[in-house]
Amino acid sequence: MNNTFLKACRGEKTKYTPIWIMRQAGRYLPQYQKVRGKVDFLTLCKTPELAAEVTIQPIDILKVDAAILFSDILIPVEAMGMKLEFFEKRGPVLSPAVRDENTVKKLSVPDPEDRMRFVMDTIRLLRKELKNRAPLIGFSGAPFTTATYMIEGGTSKNFLNTKRMLFQSPELYRSLMDKVTDTVTEYLKAQIKAGAQAVQLFDTWAGVFSPPDYKEYALPYVIQVIKELKKWQESEKLNVPVIYFVGETAGLLEEIKKSGADVYGIDWRINLDSAIKRIGKNAVVQGNLDPISLFLPHDKIEQRVKDILQRASSAKGHVFNLGHGILPETPPESAIALVELVHKLSKS
Amino acid sequence: MNNTFLKACRGEKTKYTPIWIMRQAGRYLPQYQKVRGKVDFLTLCKTPELAAEVTIQPIDILKVDAAILFSDILIPVEAMGMKLEFFEKRGPVLSPAVRDENTVKKLSVPDPEDRMRFVMDTIRLLRKELKNRAPLIGFSGAPFTTATYMIEGGTSKNFLNTKRMLFQSPELYRSLMDKVTDTVTEYLKAQIKAGAQAVQLFDTWAGVFSPPDYKEYALPYVIQVIKELKKWQESEKLNVPVIYFVGETAGLLEEIKKSGADVYGIDWRINLDSAIKRIGKNAVVQGNLDPISLFLPHDKIEQRVKDILQRASSAKGHVFNLGHGILPETPPESAIALVELVHKLSKS
Repeated sequence: MNNTFLKACRGEKTKYTPIWIMRQAGRYLPQYQKVRGKVDFLTLCKTPELAAEVTIQPIDILKVDAAILFSDILIPVEAMGMKLEFFEKRGPVLSPAVRDENTVKKLSVPDPEDRMRFVMDTIRLLRKELKNRAPLIGFSGAPFTTATYMIEGGTSKNFLNTKRMLFQSPELYRSLMDKVTDTVTEYLKAQIKAGAQAVQLFDTWAGVFSPPDYKEYALPYVIQVIKELKKWQESEKLNVPVIYFVGETAGLLEEIKKSGADVYGIDWRINLDSAIKRIGKNAVVQGNLDPISLFLPHDKIEQRVKDILQRASSAKGHVFNLGHGILPETPPESAIALVELVHKLSKS
Repeated sequence: MNNTFLKACRGEKTKYTPIWIMRQAGRYLPQYQKVRGKVDFLTLCKTPELAAEVTIQPIDILKVDAAILFSDILIPVEAMGMKLEFFEKRGPVLSPAVRDENTVKKLSVPDPEDRMRFVMDTIRLLRKELKNRAPLIGFSGAPFTTATYMIEGGTSKNFLNTKRMLFQSPELYRSLMDKVTDTVTEYLKAQIKAGAQAVQLFDTWAGVFSPPDYKEYALPYVIQVIKELKKWQESEKLNVPVIYFVGETAGLLEEIKKSGADVYGIDWRINLDSAIKRIGKNAVVQGNLDPISLFLPHDKIEQRVKDILQRASSAKGHVFNLGHGILPETPPESAIALVELVHKLSKS
């Protein structure tokens, strides 16, 4: 079995630096487009055979060291009781937007095997189909990032409604976050039970906070999820690493390191060695090539890979990744070249 | 004359902490809306009497310690020869987008007193009308931020076209940046000649870079503008402070401090004391309240102001500001309260 990724997550020595790519299954691959052409996005997420097929594509095409479940971070929100729709240009729309007590009350903490069974079925199918080719990463939005979509009713620029709620109605915010945090925790437990061998919490939007606000309004819920996952894993004799990715980490690292995660996902807007210095050298880090680097000529990509590998050398462990999701316009050959380069350059 | 702002910019002791607010003249003020209701946005920018009127409004209404010229950062781009239009929802559109040598060649480095005379006329009028009530800040987009609009043809999410150009066609990028840098330099000189008593360079989008890319593709042009302004000011026996604001500073401070600016504008995503530690205690800083804090109840705004004043105490000088532009939805009373609080709390 290719367990290089899992060993790196646990801070064990590996023969080379493992790599996977955020959003590696998706729009930039013609093979994905072919599957997606047959069904709409949500149907793709909810059909285990198809979701498993696109999850495996990057293992075959890119030779990455881990597969990540193809799904959407809004799946648990729909399971909590909100209406979820995707529109081609506008992105996801959730309704009704959560802005008062009454709407929060109507939300449930769903049983994942009931309301999101298709996700666990996808994971079970994937473990069979992947065999030992690569470990499988499960994921969820972190509580704050998940809540922003619920409060805004979709994506947002300034997160005005979200911040307004947590500033002006802290109790309402807390009651929503309690439900979201429990949902995320149970969802990840179910993914691990179904066979996920690592899980990533995506806190894509937590970077919109000042450090004190992050500490008060986002971090405690992440700590709660990770603590509960660790406690539960101990009782189940499991040891599944938790990766915590924040969209803009540079100002928040001193707080982020309190989350209790096994691996810290770092975005590209900070030098990896500076990040390691601030999180602590005992940390395992994941990252952090600027996704747009994949539009460079290959010799320039090579320079950047070398630079990141060198900067990562002070950490206890390193999983190579982009600093954010791969862009739809990326040439697949560049993603293939990146994986080859990381493997080749980290061996020597 | 209220010269508290200028003294703070120069690192001199002041009786209280001066404050101005990015985008202080604008959409959140009903008094602005009234003027704006009569003309379209570009006409407002280009009519000295009206531009001066809305520039002065926040001095009267908010009692801020500096006025900032009401204008748009795309004015010099239009003067360089691009077609500029504003659409209600979509924002600014510049055409044709600059993506090849031919389009770059057609751009000129305009004589500001010829092509942007209305800006200098506004400044001259403002100096008369402001008398000694408050100093006047002029401004320009920094070269990289200005160039992104030209390359993207407007605003952007990922700056894919911009990064693609600088990665794939570095010489084309450089030839564009040479023209933009000269335009920005001459534009700021003209503003100073007309009467601007401080100038701010807005590098709103430079935070999308990794530190090495920022150092290579954005910083050199900022250094060039500031160096030329300083040299010219020396020969003219002028001493107009230059403020340099970057949209997301947290990962870039070690590079930003090489810009040669007199004052560093810091966004809200980093604690001000951490920023000061990294720029150096000899720095004068400007910032950095999260704009959304103005939706808090007043006692909470007070806490945040206290916190920022305390964190700023290690710097050589501090100009209070938000960490980004004030939001259109902001209640004007909160902006008024903020100015009062900063004045009151920094006196004691």
